[in-house]
Amino acid sequence: MIALSEVLENIRPVDNAVRRSARTRQRTLTKPPGSLGRLEDIAVQLAGIFGAERPQVRGKAVIIAAGDHGVVSQGVSSYPQEVTAQMVHNMLAEGAAISVLCRQLGVRRVIMNAGVAAALPASPELRSLRAGRGTADISQGPAMTQEQARRCLDAGIDLAMEAANADADLIGAGDMGIGNTTSASAIVATLTGRSPRDTTGAGAGRNKEELAHKVAVVTQALAVNSPDPEEPLAVLAKVGGFEIGVLAGVVLGGALMRRAVVLDGFISGAAALVACALAPAARDYLIASHRSAEAGHRFVLTRLKLRPLLDLRLRLGEGTGAVLAMPVIESAARCLTEMATFAEAGVSDRTVV
Amino acid sequence: MIALSEVLENIRPVDNAVRRSARTRQRTLTKPPGSLGRLEDIAVQLAGIFGAERPQVRGKAVIIAAGDHGVVSQGVSSYPQEVTAQMVHNMLAEGAAISVLCRQLGVRRVIMNAGVAAALPASPELRSLRAGRGTADISQGPAMTQEQARRCLDAGIDLAMEAANADADLIGAGDMGIGNTTSASAIVATLTGRSPRDTTGAGAGRNKEELAHKVAVVTQALAVNSPDPEEPLAVLAKVGGFEIGVLAGVVLGGALMRRAVVLDGFISGAAALVACALAPAARDYLIASHRSAEAGHRFVLTRLKLRPLLDLRLRLGEGTGAVLAMPVIESAARCLTEMATFAEAGVSDRTVV
Repeated sequence: MIALSEVLENIRPVDNAVRRSARTRQRTLTKPPGSLGRLEDIAVQLAGIFGAERPQVRGKAVIIAAGDHGVVSQGVSSYPQEVTAQMVHNMLAEGAAISVLCRQLGVRRVIMNAGVAAALPASPELRSLRAGRGTADISQGPAMTQEQARRCLDAGIDLAMEAANADADLIGAGDMGIGNTTSASAIVATLTGRSPRDTTGAGAGRNKEELAHKVAVVTQALAVNSPDPEEPLAVLAKVGGFEIGVLAGVVLGGALMRRAVVLDGFISGAAALVACALAPAARDYLIASHRSAEAGHRFVLTRLKLRPLLDLRLRLGEGTGAVLAMPVIESAARCLTEMATFAEAGVSDRTVV
Repeated sequence: MIALSEVLENIRPVDNAVRRSARTRQRTLTKPPGSLGRLEDIAVQLAGIFGAERPQVRGKAVIIAAGDHGVVSQGVSSYPQEVTAQMVHNMLAEGAAISVLCRQLGVRRVIMNAGVAAALPASPELRSLRAGRGTADISQGPAMTQEQARRCLDAGIDLAMEAANADADLIGAGDMGIGNTTSASAIVATLTGRSPRDTTGAGAGRNKEELAHKVAVVTQALAVNSPDPEEPLAVLAKVGGFEIGVLAGVVLGGALMRRAVVLDGFISGAAALVACALAPAARDYLIASHRSAEAGHRFVLTRLKLRPLLDLRLRLGEGTGAVLAMPVIESAARCLTEMATFAEAGVSDRTVV
């Protein structure tokens, strides 16, 4: 395991010279300039990340971290806590949405029990960190110790490095955790300076009164813990979640290994805010897969200056949006890498006219 | 070949009873209700189209029709006319964007020479209609005869039926034709009642003065031909294009065969307007893959009441947007068909709480 400080020091900016040459190549391809729209930007970003003018996506993986949240005792979720463990079972049994999508799209799936309250069976497909049996209730005090937060980051870094060493060039970040939108709302409020009213949304389903209660719980969590945006590790420990810590580590590990980290929605976005507060250069390794229907997500995107690829009104989590976007991201790379140039194809460019 | 009148009579509404039972099944799946957003709507639409509560996508195909336009002599395009034939060569040589995407995504590609001006080589991969060596200049008179227009429709219907019989459940509609945004603008203006100023965009690249000229050419085409929106076949003949006629036929043939027809952008959208004017029930078989960067596309979408899946600022044509959206459409079907229900997975539904 690499020390966190070493990871943070070794996250480098993407290769801007290669970005420029990729942009130049883009203009020689047999299509009107700019006509592939967002795909052209993504392709150039991948070139900079991989340090290759003709970027290739060899493999795709998604890391799904699961954890429970003590704050569910405040009645912030529509689903009982045992659903976290039940859904991990469902993923392992191939019945969850993320299972279906990974199977369809050839994405390797890694599930990490970051700290689920209920017992989970041993499975070769299930990694276990068990930083705790769910976090403590953030409306009453810190979610976890700083030592636990660091263990989560370390575990996420390791998972991303392992995926990268297995040739995953796109690494998705997914989550499962009943109550985790409450924790993410507190993190996003802290790191963007927005109020809990802005950053708190319906999650897996809340009516108006329930939403007002959830805003009050987030507000209380911030009052009780006083997280300081200048101390991102402490923010994670105070109002975060085990799975959010693991996903922040995935962002750091992916950036360290020069892979594209594909964010899902609100939860992985909150994790990315923590990661980029620790290592600002990590931001250029991020691709926002989709614009979540969860209200606070837009503040994450604004802060990270990310434009999501898809807008499908998803709000499921599990990494579903990240995996759905992967074929589009791969298409971007392949068009830049595999299309013929005007000269190669003998096609008249408009400058010839 | 089936007579056009018989095709139009036999395009039936989608199966609303199956749509309803698919919607009911959607609510039992292991996810918060509605959390798959647009994918849930697409899945229900596919259920209605295929008449199957658990819709499956067996195969995917894209039909790319190519044709030339006499109106290019008015200087409406940034590229010379020979680019149409050159790009067909490029597609056959696997160098075009659509070639790259079909290869990546397992989409069968059928190219139809609907009426390209330059000679094209015989190729087993290239179908030939050759309704003419490019249309006549629509700013001076009709693009083609009504007999030619009908031949294009017939050819498109045949191609769609052939694709459907080869198990393509998603049939994409793509185009290649220098000058065809001018023709499409005239069709869209006629069938939506918008002015040429609204429906005419930059196409493959126009500056402000060039755009004003293009608007003037479209305006003149409408004045010279007086196309009547109540006579869609005549609209196609007067201001259409050979490839647009073939794609209108693809829409009709796909709807006849109860397959989902995946539109690309502005050109296939104009073709769909013609098809739906001939057979309004065809509309429910359409999926708008993306919101094109071409200005007039939104009037097509509004008229057809279609919400595009993707918004990637594409404006390339060739069926690229349609093919890019196919994995997402397939994901929609697979989630509805393959996900476990709460009961099957032993996951607590929130109604239990």
